[in-house]
Amino acid sequence: MKGVFITFEGIEGAGKSTQARKLKEYLEYIGKKVILTREPGGTKIGLKIREIVLSHWDEIFPNIAELLLYEADRNIHIYNVIKPKLEEGYIVISDRFIDSTVAYQHFARGIDRNIVDYLNNLATDGLKPDITFLIDIPVSESLKRLKDKDRIEQEDITFHQKLREGFLKIAEEEKDRFIILDGTENENIIFDKIINILSAKKII
Amino acid sequence: MKGVFITFEGIEGAGKSTQARKLKEYLEYIGKKVILTREPGGTKIGLKIREIVLSHWDEIFPNIAELLLYEADRNIHIYNVIKPKLEEGYIVISDRFIDSTVAYQHFARGIDRNIVDYLNNLATDGLKPDITFLIDIPVSESLKRLKDKDRIEQEDITFHQKLREGFLKIAEEEKDRFIILDGTENENIIFDKIINILSAKKII
Repeated sequence: MKGVFITFEGIEGAGKSTQARKLKEYLEYIGKKVILTREPGGTKIGLKIREIVLSHWDEIFPNIAELLLYEADRNIHIYNVIKPKLEEGYIVISDRFIDSTVAYQHFARGIDRNIVDYLNNLATDGLKPDITFLIDIPVSESLKRLKDKDRIEQEDITFHQKLREGFLKIAEEEKDRFIILDGTENENIIFDKIINILSAKKII
Repeated sequence: MKGVFITFEGIEGAGKSTQARKLKEYLEYIGKKVILTREPGGTKIGLKIREIVLSHWDEIFPNIAELLLYEADRNIHIYNVIKPKLEEGYIVISDRFIDSTVAYQHFARGIDRNIVDYLNNLATDGLKPDITFLIDIPVSESLKRLKDKDRIEQEDITFHQKLREGFLKIAEEEKDRFIILDGTENENIIFDKIINILSAKKII
């Protein structure tokens, strides 16, 4: 594929969305073809799926169902946005992607890793990001920064701790793809690091 | 599990829903604890998923995403309705279940059988019906009976042909579980056969 696929990962409040947006604006400014997207909800169908997953229900919402819904959202996202844009030569930036599913559904919720990997591969047809920025912050900092609580964000501290450790383990497994950034630093300093890394790797 | 799990399968217009309803009413009349449910949409969350799958979208709706959504619906259905009711000793009747997914997603849409089987097993945690009635009608009859068209029912005749043949192949694979009924017969005759079979098998 002709384009470049960049993802941002991390626990809530880490600053992923801020950095993803800054990167998009910078790349547009220097004249690149760029698109910023996100999961869940990077498509119209996906927004409906996102609504289901993030709503409060008076029914049991099993972990496997949650996983299947995220993967359906991803599969629709891949075929409507990510693949076509990469084929057109765009830089595609996604706020969350497969690693969030491994962190949330495997490391935090406890679903077997093989199931999560199987479904990630099925949903993406094997497509992986060229580079992934993991913005890492302590759980205490994440909880301090969170304002709007939804179903997932109300999980307890242990959940967030597992999540953070999960992301760090995934980054350890795929060192070539991951860049870990300290999310407690000033956002402009973090952003400069992102630009320097992308330039050094000749990605932009 | 203490209850009995009965499913009805077949192509659109076969008369599944009519027979499922008649069976539920009869079993209630003779004093049994019975619940009639359906897929997709046997729960409140599932109704939202059903809405997504059956709507018209101006986006690509990949076959894999459709499959993942049906399996999410099924998983939610299993944990909220089917398993709890079976554990309470109910006769659970479902209008469509795993076999519809094999017929539609594998035989008609062409998704690899291993993928469909893997996801059916994941969503149901291995739970299978005690008995499945396949109501079989020719495609020409199905198309004649259909009035309300949605996204799926507008598929072409070849699709419905693959679907019908798919159902018959699945029934052939699991002869112990399946009963094939001729859906072109009078609905009261079909219903009598259902009652006779359930009595002969000491299910009711």
